[in-house]
Amino acid sequence: MKISARNAMKGVVKSVVPGMVTTEVVIEVAPGLEVASVITKSSAESLALKVGDEAYAVVKASDVMVALD
Amino acid sequence: MKISARNAMKGVVKSVVPGMVTTEVVIEVAPGLEVASVITKSSAESLALKVGDEAYAVVKASDVMVALD
Amino acid sequence: MKISARNAMKGVVKSVVPGMVTTEVVIEVAPGLEVASVITKSSAESLALKVGDEAYAVVKASDVMVALD
Amino acid sequence: MKISARNAMKGVVKSVVPGMVTTEVVIEVAPGLEVASVITKSSAESLALKVGDEAYAVVKASDVMVALD
Amino acid sequence: MKISARNAMKGVVKSVVPGMVTTEVVIEVAPGLEVASVITKSSAESLALKVGDEAYAVVKASDVMVALD
Amino acid sequence: MKISARNAMKGVVKSVVPGMVTTEVVIEVAPGLEVASVITKSSAESLALKVGDEAYAVVKASDVMVALD
Repeated sequence: MKISARNAMKGVVKSVVPGMVTTEVVIEVAPGLEVASVITKSSAESLALKVGDEAYAVVKASDVMVALD
Repeated sequence: MKISARNAMKGVVKSVVPGMVTTEVVIEVAPGLEVASVITKSSAESLALKVGDEAYAVVKASDVMVALD
Repeated sequence: MKISARNAMKGVVKSVVPGMVTTEVVIEVAPGLEVASVITKSSAESLALKVGDEAYAVVKASDVMVALD
Repeated sequence: MKISARNAMKGVVKSVVPGMVTTEVVIEVAPGLEVASVITKSSAESLALKVGDEAYAVVKASDVMVALD
Repeated sequence: MKISARNAMKGVVKSVVPGMVTTEVVIEVAPGLEVASVITKSSAESLALKVGDEAYAVVKASDVMVALD
Repeated sequence: MKISARNAMKGVVKSVVPGMVTTEVVIEVAPGLEVASVITKSSAESLALKVGDEAYAVVKASDVMVALD
């Protein structure tokens, strides 16, 4: 599937923490650069995500803000 | 301001493309890794964003999806 | 690519209206049921979207609200 | 209340799974087409959602992505 | 329509700025407290929004971040 | 940090309800006007949020809908 989301950052799954409805997944997309995600628990189970997997952090451009120091 | 958004990726502004209401901003957050953002034109003007600026791409964890190849 | 977004509704592109930064795309996902999307213009161009194409409307579960009459 | 969200898909609640903070609700919006939603548990309780209810899955157009096979 | 979005802030429309695809709407929800919104131009037209109208700024709880000074 | 999010509503934390992955935070941003937020539990812990704190509810303009009675 080719998706319109502008941002698909390839990396490695560092942690998978399931809750009751949602699961937090952290992906390291560059050395020292981690991206945290919260997805539904059933999506995480459907993807069978586990630490060490190659995975993408995908973000729609309209969900990205810009900040300055 | 310290914000709850889990993901604040520091980088350099690569492009700023204004429309009538929104502006697209691209930030390189790691070598070869660009993040595209769409913000309001007035926010972009308020931040006075221009190519070469240091800036952060900020994303709430609930807006990050996970994908596998 | 297999994505965590829970909702991928297959349908047919009914309209593609480009602006300066964003493009509105309408997909009919069931008879008489249309889903409107706003994506970046560059994503729409990259996907080469046009009326009549088969396409999916993809939505993360945390972006879906529930309403009652 | 008349809302700006472009997408309000009428259907029937198929499941309601509460967690500690959020609740997952699945609505069938067309035969065989289900939409999953994660809302706050207190919203789900406030709406008194239960299986079999008529309900709408409501999505803002800027939260809809487009994908191709 | 009764919606699950936790936040519906009643106020008065202060400005409506249309673009090609999206429209920016500002609503004053308390004295001196304005909320800016970007919706599709067709939604704004469908609601016939104009300065001075009573309106609600509606936000899903999962789209609200928290920040400290 | 100066952020592009158009809406930063200053107020006082009224409640903090942790779940397993997410935490619900309610901020009163004007007399009688409360804004509910769901953030990751780790963000809430990192900010050390507690009732009575001054805090901002921050919302990107593209996540704000408009509704009429």
